[in-house]
Amino acid sequence: MEIENDPAYQQMINGELYMESPLLLKRRNYVREQIMKYNQIADNDERNAGMKSLLRSVGDRFFVEPTFEFSYGVNITIGDHFYANHGVTICDEGVVKIGNDCKFGPKVGLYTPVHPLDPTVRRTEAERTAPITIGNDVWIGGSAMVLPGVTLGNNVVVGAGAVVTHSFPDNVVVVGNPAHVLKENKPTA
Amino acid sequence: MEIENDPAYQQMINGELYMESPLLLKRRNYVREQIMKYNQIADNDERNAGMKSLLRSVGDRFFVEPTFEFSYGVNITIGDHFYANHGVTICDEGVVKIGNDCKFGPKVGLYTPVHPLDPTVRRTEAERTAPITIGNDVWIGGSAMVLPGVTLGNNVVVGAGAVVTHSFPDNVVVVGNPAHVLKENKPTA
Amino acid sequence: MEIENDPAYQQMINGELYMESPLLLKRRNYVREQIMKYNQIADNDERNAGMKSLLRSVGDRFFVEPTFEFSYGVNITIGDHFYANHGVTICDEGVVKIGNDCKFGPKVGLYTPVHPLDPTVRRTEAERTAPITIGNDVWIGGSAMVLPGVTLGNNVVVGAGAVVTHSFPDNVVVVGNPAHVLKENKPTA
Repeated sequence: MEIENDPAYQQMINGELYMESPLLLKRRNYVREQIMKYNQIADNDERNAGMKSLLRSVGDRFFVEPTFEFSYGVNITIGDHFYANHGVTICDEGVVKIGNDCKFGPKVGLYTPVHPLDPTVRRTEAERTAPITIGNDVWIGGSAMVLPGVTLGNNVVVGAGAVVTHSFPDNVVVVGNPAHVLKENKPTA
Repeated sequence: MEIENDPAYQQMINGELYMESPLLLKRRNYVREQIMKYNQIADNDERNAGMKSLLRSVGDRFFVEPTFEFSYGVNITIGDHFYANHGVTICDEGVVKIGNDCKFGPKVGLYTPVHPLDPTVRRTEAERTAPITIGNDVWIGGSAMVLPGVTLGNNVVVGAGAVVTHSFPDNVVVVGNPAHVLKENKPTA
Repeated sequence: MEIENDPAYQQMINGELYMESPLLLKRRNYVREQIMKYNQIADNDERNAGMKSLLRSVGDRFFVEPTFEFSYGVNITIGDHFYANHGVTICDEGVVKIGNDCKFGPKVGLYTPVHPLDPTVRRTEAERTAPITIGNDVWIGGSAMVLPGVTLGNNVVVGAGAVVTHSFPDNVVVVGNPAHVLKENKPTA
C-alpha cells in the first residue's frame, strides 16, 4: 500500500512520536466515510464484506454487528472465525493483531494510541502508539477494553467491564479494573 | 410465536447449551434490520412504537433514546414507565425481565449470553444463557452493566460504571467493579 | 436564548429538583433530531459545524468523530482545540465547562443528571443536576466517565475505563473505579 511508504505511517506503527501526515489524514477520512456507510447496511454479507475490504487482512468467517468502528483499518489483522457484537471500537493507530476464533462482546474497545503525558507536547497532537496482540480463542466480554501494549495469550477470557492494562499468558480468566487473574482455565485435553 | 416451538429457542431460554437455529437466525436478522431503521427515527412516538413492536411485552410510557439495541427482542419484558438513554444494549439471548419505573443511563449493557469456558466448545459457537431480572424502581447509571444470572430487587440504584456480577436485594445502592453495596437506601415511608 | 427565561431551565442548571418543561422538551427533541442528522455526515467540516451550532460556546479547532451525543447543548461550553473520538456522550442537563486543548477517547461519558434516591420522587421524573468542570489540557481515556459535580484541574489525565466520582486538582493521572491518583504529572518547565 502507498501508505506504507509514508514516513509518518512508519513512525506511527513503530511507536515513535508522530504527527498525522496528509496521507494518513486522507486514509482516516476515507475510512470514516466508508464505515459510516457500512454501519447502515443490515445485510450481513454486504456489511461484513465492506468492513473486511478496509482491514489489512481478515480470515474466513468474519462477522461484525453494526456499529463497528476503527481508525485506519490498515493496521488490523484478524484470523479466521471472528465475531464482534454491537458497538465495538478498535483504535488501530498502532498495530492490532487478533488470532483465530475470537469473540468480542458489545461495546468492547481496543485502544492503541498513547498521548504524551507532557501537556505541552500533547497540545501539538503528536502521539505514540503501542501494539495490541490477541491470541487464538480469546473471548472479550461486553464493555471491556484492552489498552496499548497489551498481549493476550491463547484462550484468554476477559470478563465484562474489565480494563486490561497489562499482558496475560494463555489460559486465564481475567476481570476487574485493572484486570487481574480470576482463575486459570486450562482446556480439557 | 412460531419461534417458541423451536427446540433451539427452548434450549436457549432454558440455559442449556444451544446452537443458533435457522429460525433464530431469521429472527436475529429481522431484528437487526428493524432496529437499524428505528434508530434513525427522530420522532419519539414513531421510534418508540417501532422498538416496542419487537419486544415480547412492554407496559405504558416506554421511551428509548437512539441507539437502543437488542438481539431477538422476544425475550424482553418491560413494565410501565421505562426510560433508556442513548446507547443502551440488551443482549436478550436469555430472558430479560424489567419491572416498572426503571431508568437506564447512557451506554448501559444487560448481557445474558455465557460462552463456554472450554475453547474447543466455544469455537463451535454453542453457548448458554442466564436470565436477568430487574425489579421495580431500578436506576442503572451510565456505562454500568448487568451480567448473566443477576437479579436486582426493587429500588436498586446501580452506580455509573458498575459491573454487576451477582444479585442484590431491595433498597441498596451498588457501585464498583465488581459491584458491591455502597449503602442501604430504604424509601422514606 | 429564550430557554434561559424558563423557570424549569433555571432550576435545572442550579441543581434544584426540576421537571422537564415544554420548552426544555422542545429543545431536547430538536437536539435529538439535529445530532441524528449530523452524526450521519462524513464530511468533517460540515459535521463539526453542525454540532458546534447546537452548543453554547465552542472555541477554535473543534473536532468530534461520529457519533457525538448530548441532551440540550445549551449547557456545554468548550474551549479551543477540542477532540472527541467515536461515541462520546455528554449529558448536559447540568452545566458542562471544558477548557482548552482537551482530548476525549472513544465512548467517554460526562454525566450531570442525578436522579433522586427516594423511588417515590424518582418515579415522578423530577431530577437534579450537578455541574462538571474540566480544566485545560485534560485527556480522558477511552470508555472513562465523569460523574455529576466533578471538577478536574488542568493537565489531568484520566485512564481508560476510569469512573471519576470526585474532583481532582491539577497535574495528576487518575485511574480505577472509583478513580484515584496513580501518580503526579507535573509538566516539565
